[in-house]
Amino acid sequence: MANFSEMNITVVGLGMEGGSYAIAINQYLKPKNLYAIDIKENVLIAAEQLQVITKGSTRPEEILPKSDLVIMCIYPTGVIQFLREYMHLFKPGAIITDAAGVKRNIVKEIVSFVRDDVDFVPGHPMAGNEFRGFLYADKKIFEGNSYLLTPTLKNKESSLQLIEEMALKFRCSKVYRTDPDTHDTKIAYASQLMHLVATALVNCDSYTDDMSTFVGGSFKSATRVANINPDLWTDAFMENSDKLLEQLEKFNANLQMMKTALENKDADTIYRFFETSYLKSNAHDR
Amino acid sequence: MANFSEMNITVVGLGMEGGSYAIAINQYLKPKNLYAIDIKENVLIAAEQLQVITKGSTRPEEILPKSDLVIMCIYPTGVIQFLREYMHLFKPGAIITDAAGVKRNIVKEIVSFVRDDVDFVPGHPMAGNEFRGFLYADKKIFEGNSYLLTPTLKNKESSLQLIEEMALKFRCSKVYRTDPDTHDTKIAYASQLMHLVATALVNCDSYTDDMSTFVGGSFKSATRVANINPDLWTDAFMENSDKLLEQLEKFNANLQMMKTALENKDADTIYRFFETSYLKSNAHDR
Repeated sequence: MANFSEMNITVVGLGMEGGSYAIAINQYLKPKNLYAIDIKENVLIAAEQLQVITKGSTRPEEILPKSDLVIMCIYPTGVIQFLREYMHLFKPGAIITDAAGVKRNIVKEIVSFVRDDVDFVPGHPMAGNEFRGFLYADKKIFEGNSYLLTPTLKNKESSLQLIEEMALKFRCSKVYRTDPDTHDTKIAYASQLMHLVATALVNCDSYTDDMSTFVGGSFKSATRVANINPDLWTDAFMENSDKLLEQLEKFNANLQMMKTALENKDADTIYRFFETSYLKSNAHDR
Repeated sequence: MANFSEMNITVVGLGMEGGSYAIAINQYLKPKNLYAIDIKENVLIAAEQLQVITKGSTRPEEILPKSDLVIMCIYPTGVIQFLREYMHLFKPGAIITDAAGVKRNIVKEIVSFVRDDVDFVPGHPMAGNEFRGFLYADKKIFEGNSYLLTPTLKNKESSLQLIEEMALKFRCSKVYRTDPDTHDTKIAYASQLMHLVATALVNCDSYTDDMSTFVGGSFKSATRVANINPDLWTDAFMENSDKLLEQLEKFNANLQMMKTALENKDADTIYRFFETSYLKSNAHDR
């Protein structure tokens, strides 16, 4: 069992995701100290005032040398840059984890330069919302969702178990270990394709000022995540474009089949398509 | 002001939608009698037992001659067939309305044979859920959603106002009058395309037994309505295939643009696409 109450834990990046970690850590782990590093001083001051964190700093050298666990909550490419630049500052024995949504590149890069006396555990909580910034932080984003790990050959089992324990204390449904390639394949479909579709729906010129008159629940659900963070998701799409293209092709094949069926007024094909969807939706525990 | 308390109101079809009407009518309109017609006797008996309806019958001739307001909650083609077959049974002065999701064909057909002494008001509440059957009836499906009407030249203003009053008592956000062509164009995008996309996502072979491990909120939102009613939606797609094909083409153009951008690792285009989606999502009151 990890002794979180004797640890100094640090969140790097106090946006929606990092803020959610901070609130969950504060409430569920009760560490000795909870630090945060961010480039925005006002967010750090607010988080201190709200007593979410013990202390914030814009200067990694003030925080990293005393941190036992560091959680990276910035963009994937930012994680690589930050760790490369400040690797010398980490406390010997520290555990570093991240929350990046794509894993192949980030793991390969960081493993190539990570110090032998710190342990980098690649992680990805299936948690988030469609908003940006610390004001949308919410510890509930973790509840009932799974937390993925893509362990490296360098990871100590004890480090993996510490992150697992954290995730379960956050009320995640389970922790699942997989490899970066499988992760990125699954995520290309389960997350990235969903964001691509939502944005492509909203970017239709049929999305007009009078939409609110004509929309019901299906529209609201389908386009919820179209309120997207362009920086974060451009980064994620660029890193996983090969896998996403594979998924887009499969999705597109379904659309083309339905297009042909609609053109031919082929009710049988349309019915079978819906029936398959209905049966699959009900067969799987989601 | 309509005097609902002196009216006999009848719901034809006690599924999710008809059941929701029945519950809302019972609670908000408090009519003299609330009748239901359905082919399933067990559903009618259950609704009587639950005191949602005064009386149910599988035989239209028992109910229609005493009904002041009849709400058709069966499939679009079923509405046409039912009204054609039983038109002679309606009470002189009765108001008939429907809830069909496509309007051009149903309005044209019914106007062609409706008796002069009854008034057919074509309606479409932007309300529903992803489930089927009376057990999923829920008066809340109306709350905050708009209620569309596509009046015909034969409609009396008083009949239109009665349906409007009913919708507002159901806590719909507003009642909007439009023409069948505009309705079907808007709905092809705002509802039908959303259902096509959700089912096409679920029908990808990437949707596997271990999905629950990898999905977050974006997947759940995007595929919520994939739990589709194949009969109802095949009917709706067949009736509106021309309009839906137009919308599918626009959506597909967006996907193709993003496909090219991903193939070319064109971060600028991806960023601008997301930025547009973000700005549109925030600009419109949904």
